Amino acid sequence: MASIEENGSNPKRQKLTDLPERGNADGAGDEDERGLFFKDFTTTSVLREDTKAKLMTLKGKFNGKDGDAVVLLEKLPFDKETVANLMSSSTMHQTLNNDIYSTYEAFPPTNFPDYKTTMIYPATEKHVIKYSEQDMYVVRETKDLYENVTKQCLEKNQFSIQWVYNILEKKCESERIVFEDPDPVNGFILLPDLKWNRKDLDSLYLVAITHNHIKSLRDLNKESLPLLKNILKSGTEAIEKEFNIPVSKLRIYVHYQPSYYHLHVHFSNLKFDAPGTDVLRAHLLDSIIENIEMDSQYYENKTLHYTVKENDVLHQAYKDHGYFK
Amino acid sequence: MASIEENGSNPKRQKLTDLPERGNADGAGDEDERGLFFKDFTTTSVLREDTKAKLMTLKGKFNGKDGDAVVLLEKLPFDKETVANLMSSSTMHQTLNNDIYSTYEAFPPTNFPDYKTTMIYPATEKHVIKYSEQDMYVVRETKDLYENVTKQCLEKNQFSIQWVYNILEKKCESERIVFEDPDPVNGFILLPDLKWNRKDLDSLYLVAITHNHIKSLRDLNKESLPLLKNILKSGTEAIEKEFNIPVSKLRIYVHYQPSYYHLHVHFSNLKFDAPGTDVLRAHLLDSIIENIEMDSQYYENKTLHYTVKENDVLHQAYKDHGYFK
Repeated sequence: MASIEENGSNPKRQKLTDLPERGNADGAGDEDERGLFFKDFTTTSVLREDTKAKLMTLKGKFNGKDGDAVVLLEKLPFDKETVANLMSSSTMHQTLNNDIYSTYEAFPPTNFPDYKTTMIYPATEKHVIKYSEQDMYVVRETKDLYENVTKQCLEKNQFSIQWVYNILEKKCESERIVFEDPDPVNGFILLPDLKWNRKDLDSLYLVAITHNHIKSLRDLNKESLPLLKNILKSGTEAIEKEFNIPVSKLRIYVHYQPSYYHLHVHFSNLKFDAPGTDVLRAHLLDSIIENIEMDSQYYENKTLHYTVKENDVLHQAYKDHGYFK
Repeated sequence: MASIEENGSNPKRQKLTDLPERGNADGAGDEDERGLFFKDFTTTSVLREDTKAKLMTLKGKFNGKDGDAVVLLEKLPFDKETVANLMSSSTMHQTLNNDIYSTYEAFPPTNFPDYKTTMIYPATEKHVIKYSEQDMYVVRETKDLYENVTKQCLEKNQFSIQWVYNILEKKCESERIVFEDPDPVNGFILLPDLKWNRKDLDSLYLVAITHNHIKSLRDLNKESLPLLKNILKSGTEAIEKEFNIPVSKLRIYVHYQPSYYHLHVHFSNLKFDAPGTDVLRAHLLDSIIENIEMDSQYYENKTLHYTVKENDVLHQAYKDHGYFK
C-alpha cells in the first residue's frame, strides 16, 4: 500500500471554506463501513514515534472485535492557502514573553482538519513489523566479510529485479524516460524516481539505471570509469536542459547497500531532504570516480559501512556469522 | 534565542485534563503584553515551509504597528500521554476505504493545544534571513580551490573559538566532561553536544574535541593517525561504559566544512536523525583512518564536496572567485 503512504506525505488539502461544519464534536468519530470506531479503540503498544515529523504509529484493538489494528497518526503540514484563516481563528495561550520574543500554544477551531490517520484492520504481523521502530546496527563490511557473508547472503536471497529489466527493455515506464544513452556498456536510462511527482522542482529526484549489468558499488573499478563519467556528465546536462536545475544544486550519489542490486545513480535536489542521503548509505558519484582513478581496486578493498535493520536478511546473515555479539 | 528553538522541538506538554476550557473560541487570540493580536496580522511573505517537519515561518505586519514581525508556526508532536484522549474525542472524516486500509481527516477538540507559535517583534533583517529558506549550492573543492579560495576566506574571517579553549582549559563546562585523555598531541575531551539533554539515549550525541590544534579534515595525514584511532577506541569505550550504547549503534563522523575550525568528532545515535549526517557534510571517522592509511596525503589532495548557503562567507568568496556563474 505504498500509495497510501505517498499520498499521506503531501495530502491535497481542502480549503477551509469548503469544509463542512464540524465544530460540534461530541467526543465521537465517524464509524467506517466496517463498524470501526476510535471511541472503542484501545492502544496496546506505541510502535513508533517521530517527534520531528510529528508521526506516531500504534497497535491496538477495537472493543468486541478480533485481531489487531495498526493506526498511523500524522499531523498535517501547514498550508499556504489556509494558514491566515487558521491563525486568525485560533485561540492562543501565551507561554513566554521576553523582549521581542514570545511563544504561544495555539488552539485551532474544530472546523479544520488537523491530522490524518490511516487505519489497517485487520493487521497482520508483517504490518506490525513494517510500521514498528526497528533496531539498527552498523556493519563494518571488510573485503573478507563481503566475500564470506554479504555476497553469499545476497546470492541465496536473490531478489527479483524484473521491474528493472522491464524499464531497460522499454516494457514499462518508457513514457517516463527523461534521457537515454542506449550504449549497452556505458549507457543508461534516466527517469524520475517514484517518490517524485515530476512537478515540484524543490523535491526533484531522478535515477539513472545502467544498461550494463553491474550489481553494486563493490563491483566498480577502472573499467567502470567511462560509464560513471557518462552518467555524471550526460545525466546532469539532461536535468539542466529538462528541469533547469544546475549541477550545483544536485546531490548525486550511489547507495550502499542499495535497495536493488543493479547499478543506479540517484540525483536529488539539495533542498530535498531525500531518504538515504546519510553518510552511512550514500556515496558521492564524484568521490567514487576520484577514488577509482587513484586506485582501481579501491571499492574491492575498502571497508564499507552501512546500517542494517533488525529484520533485514543481511542482519540475520551477520548475526549467524557471529558478527554481533 | 537558541533556547526558544530548542524548547520548541520537544515541548513539555500539559495533560489534557490540566487544560482550561478553550472550546468557545470566537475567532480571536489572546493579546500579548505588547498588544499583538493574530487577528490583526497580515502575512507579507512565507519565509520557509517544511512539510515534513510541519513547520512554516512567515514575515508580516500588525495593523497599526510599525516594523516587521517574524512568526514561526510548528505543529506539536503527538504525545503518548494524551493521544488516546485526542483520538477518542476527535471527529473523523473518512477519505478512503479499501479492503483493510482506510484513511481519515481528523478534527481534534479545541481544548487541546495543537500547534506552537513563536513571534519575534519587532524583527530585524537578520531575523528575517535567519528564518528564511536560503538557496544552497554544492562546492567541489579541489586542492587548488582550497588553497586559493577557502583557506584565504577562513583566514580573513577568523571566527572566535574562545569557547573551545574555555572547554579545553576547563574554564567552562568541566562538569559536563564524560571522558578525557589529557595528552596534548593525541588526547581529547568528550562531552555531550549542546543539542543533547544527556537523558534520552535515543538522541545520544557527544563530541570529542582534540587537545591538538588541528583546523579541519584537510589537515589530517598519517601523523594524525594515533589521535584519530585514540578517539575512535577510547571515545566508543567511554560511551559504552557511561551510556551502555555499543559502537554498532553509533554514527561517528567529522564535518567538512565544520561549524568551527578546531578538530572535533561527532558521535550520534543511529536512531537520531542528527543534523549534518548528509553525505555532503559528514565523513566517517573509520573511512578517514582507512583513506589516510592508504595514502597519507589523501585529504590534502582530495576534492571535497560540501554545500554552502547563500549568506555564508564561503559562498561569497566562491562567488567573488567566479566559481558560480
